[in-house]
Amino acid sequence: MRYRATVAYDGTGYHGFQRQAPEYEPTIQGELERALTKIGQPEVTVLGSGRTDAGVHAIGQVIAFDVGWRHAADALQRALNATLPGDIAVLDLTEAAPDFHPRYHAVSREYVYTIYNAPMRHPLWRLYALHVAEPLDASAMDVAAAMLAGEHDFAAFGQPTAGEVTIRRMMRAECRVEPPLVRVELEANGFLYRMVRSLVGTLLAVGRGAMKPEQLGDVLDSRDRSRAAAVVPPHGLCLTRVSY
Amino acid sequence: MRYRATVAYDGTGYHGFQRQAPEYEPTIQGELERALTKIGQPEVTVLGSGRTDAGVHAIGQVIAFDVGWRHAADALQRALNATLPGDIAVLDLTEAAPDFHPRYHAVSREYVYTIYNAPMRHPLWRLYALHVAEPLDASAMDVAAAMLAGEHDFAAFGQPTAGEVTIRRMMRAECRVEPPLVRVELEANGFLYRMVRSLVGTLLAVGRGAMKPEQLGDVLDSRDRSRAAAVVPPHGLCLTRVSY
Repeated sequence: MRYRATVAYDGTGYHGFQRQAPEYEPTIQGELERALTKIGQPEVTVLGSGRTDAGVHAIGQVIAFDVGWRHAADALQRALNATLPGDIAVLDLTEAAPDFHPRYHAVSREYVYTIYNAPMRHPLWRLYALHVAEPLDASAMDVAAAMLAGEHDFAAFGQPTAGEVTIRRMMRAECRVEPPLVRVELEANGFLYRMVRSLVGTLLAVGRGAMKPEQLGDVLDSRDRSRAAAVVPPHGLCLTRVSY
Repeated sequence: MRYRATVAYDGTGYHGFQRQAPEYEPTIQGELERALTKIGQPEVTVLGSGRTDAGVHAIGQVIAFDVGWRHAADALQRALNATLPGDIAVLDLTEAAPDFHPRYHAVSREYVYTIYNAPMRHPLWRLYALHVAEPLDASAMDVAAAMLAGEHDFAAFGQPTAGEVTIRRMMRAECRVEPPLVRVELEANGFLYRMVRSLVGTLLAVGRGAMKPEQLGDVLDSRDRSRAAAVVPPHGLCLTRVSY
């Protein structure tokens, strides 16, 4: 039987979602598979909606796996949560169609990047938000973000693997202010490798006044990675929702 | 010259505020004194407004110390922040009167205890909020909290050291709901050892329906520690403000 689950995790202590060679453990996938083994379901492969990088968090990662489980789905969820470390939680778990695939069937992913924008760093935000000391013009960032909406070739903002198409459809791109936080919210049918962190880096250049909002459109049109700003660190990033 | 500073810290990795024997380091006081040593101010004792227990956080701890510093106060603040670990920050720093004492001159302390009240635990709140799965009646908790306002003998909720007076004046006691969070906010002229965590434990008994709100008054009047509920864990607690 195939099961589908929504998973939340604090990525701080992990080498990303994807299982790696033993020297690069722990990973989220590795911990989920280890938990399944501990509850009597060995050698199960956990599929994810996408890989999150080392240090990236999630509150809405979607996974699927096949197990022969004789009890109710909520008993499986409880068993997993009792076994998983405290920084990984299964938020819901249901039976799924045998061919359900969390990556290929996803129609959109939503990521939120959190910036703590205040003169002094905040110890309780350090794991979950990027500290930016200088005041950001979040309105300019929001104007720039709006240019990302629609279907574009995002080659300037992401590293494609060989031959990969770099066109993506951005359903929503906005910059919301909840002082002292600035949140960049992006929803697209898919993201290139490091695309969110590259976009946020470039939006930050706008917020700092180093780039005008309309210049973001020029960078996008250029399809030239050297025109985009450096990627921001992973700890401000969270995979918040995957839609099907 | 005496300086006064407001300090924030993530208590997760520390054995509380107060410097201890080397085997119990790190502590917040120890790290602050180590940072002063590193910037050329050795053998300085840092005074705090009060001790926070292992695992308790602060965004408003107030400290004072004496150093011979030839530059501006904000340069001292910058030097400390550049030296301190990322989970401790000096939020402000000013010159103070030579006799300013952060503990003896404080007129009130405010603590906030955060409860994450949802069926499933949340990995990104695990270090900063107590997870309570069963639904809490926060209105009943707020009614009970209101009984704490005023001057009372809090012997039922705190461990006095030998001969210590157990009467404290509670200026504010309330329970605020910001779903899925429930926050217990307490401001008093002082707190007994573990008093906040004992009060929150008893308020949780009210929230769970195990105790009626008016029974909190009975426990208070009894001055009997065995009538209070068990203390809650430290990680939900934060020292938010000290007033002078």
